[in-house]
Amino acid sequence: MTAQEAYEWLKEYSQESAYLESFARLAGWDQATYTPKKGHAHRARMQATLAKLLHQRATHPRVGEMLACIEQSNGSFEPDSVEAVNLREWRRAYDLQTKIPERLAVELAQATSEGQAIWEEARPKNDWENYKPVLKKIFSLTREVADAIGYREERYDALLDRYEPGATTRQLSVVFEQLREATVALLERIRGSSRQPNSAVLRRRFHREAQEAFGREVIARIGFDLEAGRLDVVAHPFMQGIGPGDVRLTTRYLEDFFNTGFFGIVHEMGHGLYGQGLLPEHFGTPMGSEISLGIHESQSRTWENLVGRSLGFWRYFWPRAQQCFESLRDVRLEDFHFAINEVKPSLIRVEADEVTYNLHILIRFEVERALLRGELAIDEAPEAWNAKYREYLGLEPPEIRNGLMQDVHWSAGLIGYFPTYSLGNLYGAQFFAQAEKDLGPLERQFEQGAFAPLLNWMQEKIHRQGSRYWPRDLLRHVTGEDLNPQYLIDYLNRKFGMLYKI
Amino acid sequence: MTAQEAYEWLKEYSQESAYLESFARLAGWDQATYTPKKGHAHRARMQATLAKLLHQRATHPRVGEMLACIEQSNGSFEPDSVEAVNLREWRRAYDLQTKIPERLAVELAQATSEGQAIWEEARPKNDWENYKPVLKKIFSLTREVADAIGYREERYDALLDRYEPGATTRQLSVVFEQLREATVALLERIRGSSRQPNSAVLRRRFHREAQEAFGREVIARIGFDLEAGRLDVVAHPFMQGIGPGDVRLTTRYLEDFFNTGFFGIVHEMGHGLYGQGLLPEHFGTPMGSEISLGIHESQSRTWENLVGRSLGFWRYFWPRAQQCFESLRDVRLEDFHFAINEVKPSLIRVEADEVTYNLHILIRFEVERALLRGELAIDEAPEAWNAKYREYLGLEPPEIRNGLMQDVHWSAGLIGYFPTYSLGNLYGAQFFAQAEKDLGPLERQFEQGAFAPLLNWMQEKIHRQGSRYWPRDLLRHVTGEDLNPQYLIDYLNRKFGMLYKI
Repeated sequence: MTAQEAYEWLKEYSQESAYLESFARLAGWDQATYTPKKGHAHRARMQATLAKLLHQRATHPRVGEMLACIEQSNGSFEPDSVEAVNLREWRRAYDLQTKIPERLAVELAQATSEGQAIWEEARPKNDWENYKPVLKKIFSLTREVADAIGYREERYDALLDRYEPGATTRQLSVVFEQLREATVALLERIRGSSRQPNSAVLRRRFHREAQEAFGREVIARIGFDLEAGRLDVVAHPFMQGIGPGDVRLTTRYLEDFFNTGFFGIVHEMGHGLYGQGLLPEHFGTPMGSEISLGIHESQSRTWENLVGRSLGFWRYFWPRAQQCFESLRDVRLEDFHFAINEVKPSLIRVEADEVTYNLHILIRFEVERALLRGELAIDEAPEAWNAKYREYLGLEPPEIRNGLMQDVHWSAGLIGYFPTYSLGNLYGAQFFAQAEKDLGPLERQFEQGAFAPLLNWMQEKIHRQGSRYWPRDLLRHVTGEDLNPQYLIDYLNRKFGMLYKI
Repeated sequence: MTAQEAYEWLKEYSQESAYLESFARLAGWDQATYTPKKGHAHRARMQATLAKLLHQRATHPRVGEMLACIEQSNGSFEPDSVEAVNLREWRRAYDLQTKIPERLAVELAQATSEGQAIWEEARPKNDWENYKPVLKKIFSLTREVADAIGYREERYDALLDRYEPGATTRQLSVVFEQLREATVALLERIRGSSRQPNSAVLRRRFHREAQEAFGREVIARIGFDLEAGRLDVVAHPFMQGIGPGDVRLTTRYLEDFFNTGFFGIVHEMGHGLYGQGLLPEHFGTPMGSEISLGIHESQSRTWENLVGRSLGFWRYFWPRAQQCFESLRDVRLEDFHFAINEVKPSLIRVEADEVTYNLHILIRFEVERALLRGELAIDEAPEAWNAKYREYLGLEPPEIRNGLMQDVHWSAGLIGYFPTYSLGNLYGAQFFAQAEKDLGPLERQFEQGAFAPLLNWMQEKIHRQGSRYWPRDLLRHVTGEDLNPQYLIDYLNRKFGMLYKI
């Protein structure tokens, strides 16, 4: 078999798996939207069956043979060519999947399934004692996973790399340290400001139908293609890309709070634009796939915050917003803009503002890294968590359900995942700065309703690249430099400095 | 390997395939309901990939080996035991799938895919000349399929048996002949009656929301579990059973015609009750699956017509109907009941009343049988079709789009399928007569809103039997006799005799 034949075999195999994965994603979306109450048990069994089949496909020895066949005939593909990229990522995925022994994968699947169920029950009751054993088990098995995958410097590298290829703990901790210092300092200045927003205007009445109509109008205006996607209502919003031409956003509406519905939609739209921007001709291969969670989050956070919380954006949409929402008719645009940008330390990550959000992430990163290094025991973790909240945010969780037990991630085995949220913010600010260099001041464009220049730029520089570059290489390729936290720091200082006049 | 081990292997394999088929059904439902416009091309490719995988699974030589292993160690399972039933049906399915050569299956798939596309375009334009070649091809390939499957008396047997196991063309033609004669005679008497309903009351205004609310109330009252199912709106209504606890009905509403929405819902509910009545512990094996299209249709037609168009049913629901629909407030119950039972020969099968419906089916059966026997050429088929409409219904299609080209079935390769619609009516009447013997007069129960006795009877006698009995054996088992058209004939004569006072 020639290298070219082996490549074609892998390509078809990868595409077939991708079509099957589309079913899993569609069924997942349906679980959150339209599955009847009594259909969930059957759905779980469907998903388990397909997951097993996909795992068998991904780890099939034939894949390894085909990869080896191409690699042994080296020099077949131009570096950076479509073929070279696909080969690199297929190898990466195959190694990741096959390095973890079956026994460990099964044990971890059981522990995380149990973990999520226990968490669900224990969290509302602040029941740390009953949650602790399963959390210990999950961290212990995850340590084994990291060892099976292998790493250069520390265990955390192996976990992080699964979500953010090429990222290292060392680099991350340097960058996060800078971000933490700058954020804590900015927060200090904000606290000292005499100027404070009136966020009560966001707590007025916002009818559900009006929120949906306005949300749809905004995302369509920005460039999300509603004929190639949907917007539905769920309890815990997410974006699900089924495949080319079918990218589904979800949201939830609170009639007494503006932000949840609106910024939820814009956030998921950011993810959805990435999905709609992938090249359909590469569907089912790495060249047609998103490269990382951090890059994904850079898209959602950019549209949500750098665009959606900018004054220029609201200058354009304000007349329509006032038409849609009676409760905004006596509000001044500048006051509304200040209100949606209120900075207020809180205990809950998912409700955090742009400034404090990263502190929540840094705390999780520091705690999970210390746990993996063995510098911290699970028993001591809640106290370590609380101490960091005191130090960085000036708040102490009175209850563990709003402390270490607030997120589902660890229970689901998602360790090494949290940093991708802050990486998204960092990448987003760095990309945005480059886009302004290339396109001129963007807020002035938003004021005119011109979102296409930024969207086209994103599509060309990021979406259509698929998995061509790992995140750090993509950054270098697009912005000419390595990850640099100063872009986000400068953006935050500038924006909140103006708002709070500090 | 022991027979028991081979059985366990087949059972697990069958269940796994069933879970994968659940994905295909869910994706099919989603195509009709919520797939965005630009997502359909991707969805078609998803379905093709999964269909190929399922075909490979179904025809895998290992299945044949396992079946042979059990069969060779004969006497392992009690006749009529769960194991014996599953084994019989697995063998039947495996033979059906493996007898058709790959080449023929692929050619037919291409021809029917092309056939549906051409039909879609040619039908509105009455374009017989452009449709004829593909129809010829489909009939020619279907003849090959019948030959590959094999048959005792005539080719049509092989095709019919795919949808209605054990049914024979010979038996069918005898039964259909009796039904035709009785129906034509009844129709003659109805035409001669001076009493005619005022169906204009059904053409008033029926708000969509009111139709939906009333429909949901009715099916819930009858016993369809809306927590284990859904009701959505589509262009071409159907029922889709995803799996235990998840059975989905669809309908469409016309605001200026009552019947389409309401009787559509009750019809699909009949299918859905069958789906909800299957035993979940046998999911994924023949014992937990519907036995045939005819038995399925017996359920939908029974609830739609024998129940839903009965006077007793409307005596119970009339107060609520008048509350829901302002346009019914000045209508007398008896007039409404007569109107929904109007008999009026028409050209279109899907709009036909209870009396003339079977004539539409018999015409299709006679034409497709003659085509397969070679007694009729495709070129002559439209004229043969029209002649039968003249003879049986006293109408002649002025245009072929309302004649031979009206249904999609043949374009999709569904030849031998139409008879199952009338078999459904025949089975339904025979079951219903038995249910009245067992439970007493049913309309009096409907009058009191007591639908549970009939539903429980159906569940016990039919739904929970899964594929234990082939349709003829099920009939014998439940009613003590073979298929007997007299039950349907008597029912029609009695009901329409009273309505039209003939």
